[in-house]
Amino acid sequence: MSYTMTELIGLKRDGGELDADAIEWIISEFTADRVPDYQMSSLLMAILLNGMSAAELAPWTEAMLHSGEVLHLDAVLKPKVDKHSTGGVGDKISIPLAPIVAACGVAVPMMSGRGLGHTGGTLDKLESIPGFTTQIPPEDFVDQLNDIGVVMVGQTEALVPADRRIYSLRDASGTVPSVPLISSSIMSKKLAEDLDGLLLDVKVGSGAFMKTKAEAEILARTMVGIGASHGTPVTAMLTDMSQPLGATVGNSNEIIESIAVLRGEGPPDVTELTLTFATEMLVLAGYENRDDAHHAVHHAVSSGDALDVMMALTARQGGDARYLENPALFERAPHEHVIPATRSGFVHRCDALSLGVAGVRLGAGRATKSSVIDPTVGFTIEMKVGDRVAEGEPLARVAYRDQGSLESALSVLQETWEIADEPCEAPELIMGVIS
Amino acid sequence: MSYTMTELIGLKRDGGELDADAIEWIISEFTADRVPDYQMSSLLMAILLNGMSAAELAPWTEAMLHSGEVLHLDAVLKPKVDKHSTGGVGDKISIPLAPIVAACGVAVPMMSGRGLGHTGGTLDKLESIPGFTTQIPPEDFVDQLNDIGVVMVGQTEALVPADRRIYSLRDASGTVPSVPLISSSIMSKKLAEDLDGLLLDVKVGSGAFMKTKAEAEILARTMVGIGASHGTPVTAMLTDMSQPLGATVGNSNEIIESIAVLRGEGPPDVTELTLTFATEMLVLAGYENRDDAHHAVHHAVSSGDALDVMMALTARQGGDARYLENPALFERAPHEHVIPATRSGFVHRCDALSLGVAGVRLGAGRATKSSVIDPTVGFTIEMKVGDRVAEGEPLARVAYRDQGSLESALSVLQETWEIADEPCEAPELIMGVIS
Repeated sequence: MSYTMTELIGLKRDGGELDADAIEWIISEFTADRVPDYQMSSLLMAILLNGMSAAELAPWTEAMLHSGEVLHLDAVLKPKVDKHSTGGVGDKISIPLAPIVAACGVAVPMMSGRGLGHTGGTLDKLESIPGFTTQIPPEDFVDQLNDIGVVMVGQTEALVPADRRIYSLRDASGTVPSVPLISSSIMSKKLAEDLDGLLLDVKVGSGAFMKTKAEAEILARTMVGIGASHGTPVTAMLTDMSQPLGATVGNSNEIIESIAVLRGEGPPDVTELTLTFATEMLVLAGYENRDDAHHAVHHAVSSGDALDVMMALTARQGGDARYLENPALFERAPHEHVIPATRSGFVHRCDALSLGVAGVRLGAGRATKSSVIDPTVGFTIEMKVGDRVAEGEPLARVAYRDQGSLESALSVLQETWEIADEPCEAPELIMGVIS
Repeated sequence: MSYTMTELIGLKRDGGELDADAIEWIISEFTADRVPDYQMSSLLMAILLNGMSAAELAPWTEAMLHSGEVLHLDAVLKPKVDKHSTGGVGDKISIPLAPIVAACGVAVPMMSGRGLGHTGGTLDKLESIPGFTTQIPPEDFVDQLNDIGVVMVGQTEALVPADRRIYSLRDASGTVPSVPLISSSIMSKKLAEDLDGLLLDVKVGSGAFMKTKAEAEILARTMVGIGASHGTPVTAMLTDMSQPLGATVGNSNEIIESIAVLRGEGPPDVTELTLTFATEMLVLAGYENRDDAHHAVHHAVSSGDALDVMMALTARQGGDARYLENPALFERAPHEHVIPATRSGFVHRCDALSLGVAGVRLGAGRATKSSVIDPTVGFTIEMKVGDRVAEGEPLARVAYRDQGSLESALSVLQETWEIADEPCEAPELIMGVIS
């Protein structure tokens, strides 16, 4: 079939539905540079404002998914599952999670992203392990997955080129905040990994892209629906991102915290989320009994098997595994600043967004795509929601490199903590499950 | 002030209102090539779908209007008025209208367009008079307006460059059918003519861009509002375009019909609309008494003064005025085909749109901007709505150049006329007035 782009834009603009052939034509012509950016951006705005039906979203995602190469992991003998998070502050879950799941006999071909804006990125964190490379040739995937059960890499250029092009156009044309466009972007990349199951962590709260549970639910249901259309089981969990996850925000400090989780010594929230996700991924991979999965996950940690996988993974991807055995080897930022409590009481707020923004100002995140990360700087958070605190006690410790970045970071932390007389409960970590 | 385009797109996308400074920045940066097309087109789609308030539309129009040169007609001693039609089939009103108004002592600095799609264009029609040029230097405008009271030209490149750029982007990005964008496009060009008053002919019906009276009313009110914000009195008339105006659709045949109107011998509908519009324009120009204006208009025709102005205008703009004295001089198409009535009865429909499309197929209009017009081809319509017709009587005569174009034209005329037993009234020509 042949179409004209203005007719298809007009159809979407006027509330009509694009059929699968038309959608395939749009994505392939755009990827081949035969549809100009100014037509695609007006279509994207029409999609953002008029929405997309499930009947449009499935072929849209498939067309993106098939715009380039896809992984073929038939030669991996184990079931293959992955997890994707919509992004948050202090969210290092992937790092302990993937080795735990691999230690339970399930392959994890994990492709992650870099930090952008106030959220951190798994690749940046892994690269704070000296030598660790997140770029390995796709032809080595199968061997590594069969050998140690996990790869942790960045997306290759050859996968889903349509998404890269559409994403950068959305970024420049004001068409980012659209549930169908976000969903198809995420799902096209994940489904290109040739998975048997996918766990989605849809974050909710100030530090997440979705600020309310209602918004997050819509996004989660949309992505689960795309998975169903593709024939891949997907479970989405809505989890709290009103405050940071765990006690660290940064890069090397988040690796150190991840290792603590693998040793069974992590902060309660990171540990709970990691083990819950691991259990769910084993269920997605075919464990018939959730109790068995739960037991396997706990055993992987208590036996040291998961930590062994993390060591093997690090060595295989060029990293210096001695850092994992002895975290004191990690270079430290030159200076530390303590943020004291200005009054006694109970912590009612420990705001994720402002801590994420402050982290970027310290140099732990990226203000732009070309920013260079400083792996040593970041926060150690001492007081979170529900904690009792006395005036003068530390709320957080800031590891910083220079006075300017410290002051810039502190300037956005004025309202981060709220302390009041009344006791307060910690927020529920897992707010809902959709599958 | 400095802005980022993505923030402004986001504001409009999310239902916000752009302020005057932001709007001026957008238009001037886009005109200066510092905002890329893909950002402008997503903004245009957001405007199309979310609308624009009157508070946005006024500065948007002003910014377009001031994106290039504007006319300065202070040296024209008479009041200056113009008319703009939203376009229709057989709409030659401007051609007799401008000389009549000029003959009544009011200056008409008329800038018109070319036909595109199924609608004809005043410039194309005028150019069927041998030698007639629609390009005269702006510096000659004042002299010609003072000497004979009228210029009839195309828009110069220097006027409202933002509109030309935005219009071509809208055409390619599916963002044409937007009341605020249509209104600001029309009004920026007309207000750049330095007018004391403007009459808008907003056409309604199958041959018009606005298919219903309700849509046309919204467009008319929007444009009248823009005029008020600018301080220029604007009157809009909603007029019927369910059937063509007059008895001719084409180019030289429409000139011949226009001359007939100036001789007091035109078809009733074209004559009525021309004289009503002329009266209204004199009122806009400052005639205090509508009866006086009406009388002046009729006198301009009956005295021959208006025809004299048309002759002077033609001569001044390089045209051969002998053609106006003796229309038999106009070259004729080589062939004529008669479309007979297939039954007896009363005409209930004489569809403007299909006749417009058929005219393009004959070569009387433009399929694309670069199409060449054949001035000799077109339709003479013998039967219109309300007329009684006997089987076999001619409904229309087709002047054509070759068999292929005739057949192509006839193929879209199957449903043009509807004839039934019951008597039927002609549609009301003037459907409403908004000022």
